[in-house]
Amino acid sequence: MKLPGQEESEVYSAHENGSTGELDSGPGSGPRPDGSSDTGAPKDPLLFIQLNELLGWPQALEWRETGRWVLFEEKLEMDGGRWSAPHVPTLALPSLQKLRSLLMEGLVLLDCPAQSLLELVEQVTRVESLSPELRGQLQSLLLQRPQHLIQTTSTRPCWGSAHPREASCDEEALLKEQRQNSLRQKLPPGAEAGAVLAGELGFLAQPLGAFVRLRDPVVLGPITEVPLPSRFFCLFLGPPMLGRSYHEMGRAMAVLLSDPQFQWSVRRASNLYALLAALDAFLEEVTVLPPGRWDPTARIPPPKCLPSQHKRLPSQMQEVKGSSARRYGSPAEDRHGHPQQAPSPELQRMGRLFGGLVQDVRRKALWYPSDFLDALHPQCFSAVLYIYLATITNAITFGGLLGEATDGAQGVLESFLGTAVAGAAFCLMAGQPLTILSSTGPVLVFERLLFSFSRDHSLDYLPFRLWVGIWVATFCLVLVATEASVLVRYFTRFTEEGFCALISLIFIYDAVGKMLSLTRAYPIQRPGSPAYGCFCQYPDPGGNESQWTRTKPKDRDDILSTHLGLVNASLLPPPECVRQGGRPRGPGCHTVPDIAFFSLLLFLASFLFAMAFKHVKTSRFFPSVVRKVLSDFSSVLAILLGCGLDAFLGLATPKLTVPREFKPTLPGRDWLVSPFGTNPWWLSVAAALPALLLSILIFMDQQITAVILNRAEYRLRKGAGFHLDLFCVALLMLLTSVLGLPWYVSATVISLAHMDSLRRESRACALGEPPSFLGIREQRLTGLVVFILTGISIFLAPILKFIPMPVLYGIFLYMGVAAISSIQFTKRVQLLLMPAKHQPDLLLLRHVPLSRVHLFTAIQLACLGLLWIVKSTPAAIIFPIMLLGLVGVRKALEWVFSPQELLWLDELMPEKERSTPEKGLEPEYSFSGSDSEDSELMYQPKAPEINISVN
Amino acid sequence: MKLPGQEESEVYSAHENGSTGELDSGPGSGPRPDGSSDTGAPKDPLLFIQLNELLGWPQALEWRETGRWVLFEEKLEMDGGRWSAPHVPTLALPSLQKLRSLLMEGLVLLDCPAQSLLELVEQVTRVESLSPELRGQLQSLLLQRPQHLIQTTSTRPCWGSAHPREASCDEEALLKEQRQNSLRQKLPPGAEAGAVLAGELGFLAQPLGAFVRLRDPVVLGPITEVPLPSRFFCLFLGPPMLGRSYHEMGRAMAVLLSDPQFQWSVRRASNLYALLAALDAFLEEVTVLPPGRWDPTARIPPPKCLPSQHKRLPSQMQEVKGSSARRYGSPAEDRHGHPQQAPSPELQRMGRLFGGLVQDVRRKALWYPSDFLDALHPQCFSAVLYIYLATITNAITFGGLLGEATDGAQGVLESFLGTAVAGAAFCLMAGQPLTILSSTGPVLVFERLLFSFSRDHSLDYLPFRLWVGIWVATFCLVLVATEASVLVRYFTRFTEEGFCALISLIFIYDAVGKMLSLTRAYPIQRPGSPAYGCFCQYPDPGGNESQWTRTKPKDRDDILSTHLGLVNASLLPPPECVRQGGRPRGPGCHTVPDIAFFSLLLFLASFLFAMAFKHVKTSRFFPSVVRKVLSDFSSVLAILLGCGLDAFLGLATPKLTVPREFKPTLPGRDWLVSPFGTNPWWLSVAAALPALLLSILIFMDQQITAVILNRAEYRLRKGAGFHLDLFCVALLMLLTSVLGLPWYVSATVISLAHMDSLRRESRACALGEPPSFLGIREQRLTGLVVFILTGISIFLAPILKFIPMPVLYGIFLYMGVAAISSIQFTKRVQLLLMPAKHQPDLLLLRHVPLSRVHLFTAIQLACLGLLWIVKSTPAAIIFPIMLLGLVGVRKALEWVFSPQELLWLDELMPEKERSTPEKGLEPEYSFSGSDSEDSELMYQPKAPEINISVN
Repeated sequence: MKLPGQEESEVYSAHENGSTGELDSGPGSGPRPDGSSDTGAPKDPLLFIQLNELLGWPQALEWRETGRWVLFEEKLEMDGGRWSAPHVPTLALPSLQKLRSLLMEGLVLLDCPAQSLLELVEQVTRVESLSPELRGQLQSLLLQRPQHLIQTTSTRPCWGSAHPREASCDEEALLKEQRQNSLRQKLPPGAEAGAVLAGELGFLAQPLGAFVRLRDPVVLGPITEVPLPSRFFCLFLGPPMLGRSYHEMGRAMAVLLSDPQFQWSVRRASNLYALLAALDAFLEEVTVLPPGRWDPTARIPPPKCLPSQHKRLPSQMQEVKGSSARRYGSPAEDRHGHPQQAPSPELQRMGRLFGGLVQDVRRKALWYPSDFLDALHPQCFSAVLYIYLATITNAITFGGLLGEATDGAQGVLESFLGTAVAGAAFCLMAGQPLTILSSTGPVLVFERLLFSFSRDHSLDYLPFRLWVGIWVATFCLVLVATEASVLVRYFTRFTEEGFCALISLIFIYDAVGKMLSLTRAYPIQRPGSPAYGCFCQYPDPGGNESQWTRTKPKDRDDILSTHLGLVNASLLPPPECVRQGGRPRGPGCHTVPDIAFFSLLLFLASFLFAMAFKHVKTSRFFPSVVRKVLSDFSSVLAILLGCGLDAFLGLATPKLTVPREFKPTLPGRDWLVSPFGTNPWWLSVAAALPALLLSILIFMDQQITAVILNRAEYRLRKGAGFHLDLFCVALLMLLTSVLGLPWYVSATVISLAHMDSLRRESRACALGEPPSFLGIREQRLTGLVVFILTGISIFLAPILKFIPMPVLYGIFLYMGVAAISSIQFTKRVQLLLMPAKHQPDLLLLRHVPLSRVHLFTAIQLACLGLLWIVKSTPAAIIFPIMLLGLVGVRKALEWVFSPQELLWLDELMPEKERSTPEKGLEPEYSFSGSDSEDSELMYQPKAPEINISVN
Repeated sequence: MKLPGQEESEVYSAHENGSTGELDSGPGSGPRPDGSSDTGAPKDPLLFIQLNELLGWPQALEWRETGRWVLFEEKLEMDGGRWSAPHVPTLALPSLQKLRSLLMEGLVLLDCPAQSLLELVEQVTRVESLSPELRGQLQSLLLQRPQHLIQTTSTRPCWGSAHPREASCDEEALLKEQRQNSLRQKLPPGAEAGAVLAGELGFLAQPLGAFVRLRDPVVLGPITEVPLPSRFFCLFLGPPMLGRSYHEMGRAMAVLLSDPQFQWSVRRASNLYALLAALDAFLEEVTVLPPGRWDPTARIPPPKCLPSQHKRLPSQMQEVKGSSARRYGSPAEDRHGHPQQAPSPELQRMGRLFGGLVQDVRRKALWYPSDFLDALHPQCFSAVLYIYLATITNAITFGGLLGEATDGAQGVLESFLGTAVAGAAFCLMAGQPLTILSSTGPVLVFERLLFSFSRDHSLDYLPFRLWVGIWVATFCLVLVATEASVLVRYFTRFTEEGFCALISLIFIYDAVGKMLSLTRAYPIQRPGSPAYGCFCQYPDPGGNESQWTRTKPKDRDDILSTHLGLVNASLLPPPECVRQGGRPRGPGCHTVPDIAFFSLLLFLASFLFAMAFKHVKTSRFFPSVVRKVLSDFSSVLAILLGCGLDAFLGLATPKLTVPREFKPTLPGRDWLVSPFGTNPWWLSVAAALPALLLSILIFMDQQITAVILNRAEYRLRKGAGFHLDLFCVALLMLLTSVLGLPWYVSATVISLAHMDSLRRESRACALGEPPSFLGIREQRLTGLVVFILTGISIFLAPILKFIPMPVLYGIFLYMGVAAISSIQFTKRVQLLLMPAKHQPDLLLLRHVPLSRVHLFTAIQLACLGLLWIVKSTPAAIIFPIMLLGLVGVRKALEWVFSPQELLWLDELMPEKERSTPEKGLEPEYSFSGSDSEDSELMYQPKAPEINISVN
């Protein structure tokens, strides 16, 4: 785990982004329980490098900025009048070599005391080879104002692009724009500039090279597009015989300066030789692409993960930036992005009753005040809005499904109330207050099974359920007392994925099944089954009524072919007919046409809309903020669109059932569930059996989620509370059972979304660097506010009756598909369908033979099939035990697969991990001597990623 | 245009793929009209390079193949037991430098006369520094058989991957597998091998380097995985203190050998210094990626286009491979992949009546025999099958639309018959026999307008149409006589895109419109409009009938609320009711429920299926052949799926109207259209006016397609025939008008598909090189057979009545969407919605300011809007003139945009092209001095690409 106080040093890490704006120095920072202080190490400022090129020789000499660098290169598209996207710079080797020789011959001024551009130019041009006249010409040239393409908020660039020479803005405007330059806002305060000037100059007899490091950085007039103090000034001019090489040498110098290690060295270089040594060290580390196999003009987009710098740094640099190794995580921490849970202090067994719980309470109590103070940040407002919408969407959808599953014993109102009460209580008490409670898929499935069971045996459901809840709470307290949570280390990816895949499949199956059952409720009318025959018959004074009843047709066809004789009829619609004392007659009176297909359309539309909105995030269209909103609120938007479509056509589709007033959905019951109802007394004891099963399920569901939420890559400072969380869940179990509300455990997806909306990131640096992840705003307030709002929303319930059920089924399908698509298991199943040569370059496949990968996948598929069969038999209720059986299967797999294979396919179980010598697991040390090349990839920091479970 | 006979030399082009298997030496090759022969220059064979690494020091020394190269690198994934995907090799600079110094110190044997591995090993180990004992040890080590991972057809690799050392196959089996190696089949005959052996050897006191070029390549036993004669043998061994550098030096050597220029030099090197010079030349050209900005372990996939080699080759090499520059196209030819039509001989004006036609006939007559002989190739069978299916799909869909557009004056039968007759005749006579005729979108639109016009003025349609056809044929003959086809050079991309976009939009609009009109024909039944009231009333003896009629309700509500009194009723469905002498009564009798939404579902399903099948081609799933079939037959499959869904549910959806026997669709007409019918005589003269419009349309449609089909990048040898094609179209116009069949012109998409199915390609080389395009099998037979089959398919027509109309509308929507997505205009419209930083790195955007791009797009949008407005007014029939007006607008754009901007956004018109000095257009010479870096990208060969028009 991360130590508090470490994050500051991470800001000074290898990339020198130096953005201090995001450091928690606000009032919410709170006390540091361990009292550690900042490291306070000095750091180099960020360097912005600009290349000004001399163009237009011999007719119209002018300087123009043609490239700029911070981490990546941006190139001026001169005709296009815009900056290219940031890309990895590529150089030609000769330009680096020519640069080296020019530096050797040229002028190198380290710690130059110049205080202005004029002074600097005088110093630089004080070269013997220049005649006084040339020197004057050169000086005036160097003092000439360069052309910059400044991107302000207006779309039109500063200089007209079609005729760039004519249109030049006046001095004042330029300086103003220089200050308004949007680039400046992206550079952190304290950033320095490096100016590289290069080009061909016909009147020079021999090349002129100069490298200047200013003792005190000064703003060199308009030389750079942003008015930053310049630290470095490089000049490469010469006669035009060498072609474009001055430009390339200038680029090479700029790329060198943008390299952290070169920059570190050159800031400390005391003479020319130190400078050249830094250049040589750079050359030692470059990657070379052979000619002819790579188009040198292709632009390589910035990689998602930069290679770690800690291997490259010289020893002094290591001291200053000691945290960079930790920043990238130690191997044991996030190989595959999975924590190896062994060293986590929260999961150490204390060895006495409730020892873990006591420990959790002690640890969390220290942070309690800061859990509220840390929430004082604007980011928390948007997090609240986002999570609130997600939570009520969840409450609606799960409430609707629960209503159907329990035949109205519970419903939307219970869902809202339960979510608000349980969620708020959990946020106040829990060990991990970022967790959002929800009725999760597995518990919902169990509740449905329990309901079918009690219906089949004519039991009074809610009292029976109350006793199940009481027993579950008891069992969970036993689990807390015995510190059973430390067993979560046996839940490997294999178990998680089996769990997730089963639940996702149940969601998909149920959504499709419920949709199809709608087409049975609203049958499609085929030709030949003219169900549209209907008229309104009035009680006939003459006794024709009896004729109708007398014939007693055996089936519909008989009705149709029966000649009714004289009837007293009208064409009133059935409800109106009944109101006027008539009787609707004919097979068409009870069918509602068009509903089946329209429901199917709504179902598909809401599913596809939700999928499409989710994927907007990765499209190129619209500004990022619009894409983020569309993607984050994909379910809400899909529901709204579905409702709109339904309202537009106004068909009588089945809608969500919502109570009209604030009372339990089940008619006639009180808020407090009666302890026995019509059930026999011994059922309160017998309920222990299903409660045992449910306890297993609750334990697995709760703890798998907790493990995921507390993964090392999220950098939580305040620690987890596995025992405390389970304790809270047990208490809430009791409360919700007594009130007849749904049962709640931690929901993975929505909790991860909560954490994601609270990410602290370094401010994105200009020019292509992805912002680096600093941690999460850990506090209790956002969750609390979300659930208070949810409670208030109970009074919104009447609006909910406009939601058509097919739309909700579509959202369920979406949730199932989204959850099952996110697990590695699915990717491996897809591999079964791919020819080997089209398979993606997964690290997994580099290290495990394809046949073994397929075997592992096949075993998982078989387990899943078995679980599905159990779920479909009358023994369905025992499926929690089968889920637990996955842990056993995983253990048995150790006889089939080698530890190294399991390490790649899954992760290791605790004993194995300890018993296997470290060396045997590291690919570098294994027999395969040539595989260390992907060690970098393995240790790259993983961004927090949702990869398990429906919420 | 390409010269005949050029293609052979292209095979020996820069990449040395050397695959001669695809050269046309078969019987179909035919005579060469110009009598040119092969260049017959000598060429270097392809080199397969293998790196064998010495692993397991000190316990269990063994050689293992860990890398192989032809163009790209394949790396052994030792744990995974498989070869990596081919990727661009990356090297570290120091390994190249160490290799250089080791070569300097080591043994270099050029033209070594060794005849076997034993002799070679003896020569290589004859080094002073080795003691006799060590020499013996080393020799036996070098003779040891290396481990290869041979991928045979069986999935399991030869050596067990989990325990590689134990499981080794016996000698015999290995040699057998070496011969069966699937890699061998991919290497062309005559390929040579280069073996690089590298590794750490503890008993050596100092590094041992050897570079051997064998005088006569010999098979060196089991050293390489394929039994190829080896030309090069390199050995880099040394004590282990240098770490893994021997492996890296071996890789560097292998990468060097895989470089064409290094290979060329080293095959001709006479001493060590020539070898070192080649290495230095390589170093001069490498691309360098800075450390820290690029993860050196990331694998770069092979680029789609390799950079051209012609700039790199030394002058001697240029002589041998003189064609490589031509291979990549000259700048004037395919900048943007568009031909600059000026130099095309087919479009030179002859200056006398029918001069162009006579020239076309002369040129094509020479090739006529070969047009049949060249078809004798198995590839032509699959082409026939593919194009046949596409053609009948087209005939069905267009026939269906035509039937609706002309209210049954023409229909599916005419569509089949016309397609067969016109297509076959065109294939026999045309200048470009690869063209597939079809009723294209624009002509269909015009026909619909013509029909509406004649219906509005109560004209007899087919006779009127006959006169229009006669006049069009006349006008077209005039255009042929005056060689008007040379004007096609004024049809730039601007015109093509305007044409295509308008027609695509009409398709999309019509498809959606027709779908919506279905929902009016089969109205949706909302609650409150209980249209399901219906019963069967019999003529009543008592006179209740009069009561019904008497009340005369004003509207439906009145009917509904009217009390009918006593009626003699039954619930028989309406048709049965009528049969039994009754009368269906009630508003529900004439509505068919569920049809509207089911039609909508069919419409969406067929559209989405067609889109999805089309995109299967680029997915990773399934073997390529399955993906190709699914993608190529996407429309057919979507229609079949739609029909299946419809048949499964058996609803009375509207179906395609198909005549029951072989007679014209319009009842009562003969096959020959009567010349006047009920029309006044002067209409035959007045028809000249619409005919003029149609002639413009036919000319534009035909010639835009012809220009696209005859583009330089398709490398047609037999030349185009613009005048001859138009002449044929004119004659067929006459024929189809007389017979009342649809009108036909060349269809772009289907003709391009035809050409694509007849591509000749070099056999794909192993290891990542895309196969290179050699040309098209130009012949008349495939087209002819396709249309004969289409003619036979007329008797399949009765099956077609099972096709629901919504499915066809869905396919139309798909065609419209596919066509409009393929044009650059659409991409530019999308740019309007993208924030600048998310825009793709288009060359266009590098060279034209975004605001100018947007202005150009806006002008195109305005033109399109104007065209759409004209199309929607009663003046719709003049839209061909408006289309022609696009040429004028384009001309006027020359005042708004600079020639350079137009060059990037469009292309130049003939005069402008001649009047503008070449220099002004080349970005290299323009003011922007730093932009030549994308010259490579500009001149890369474009793969044939469909980018215009619906078929």
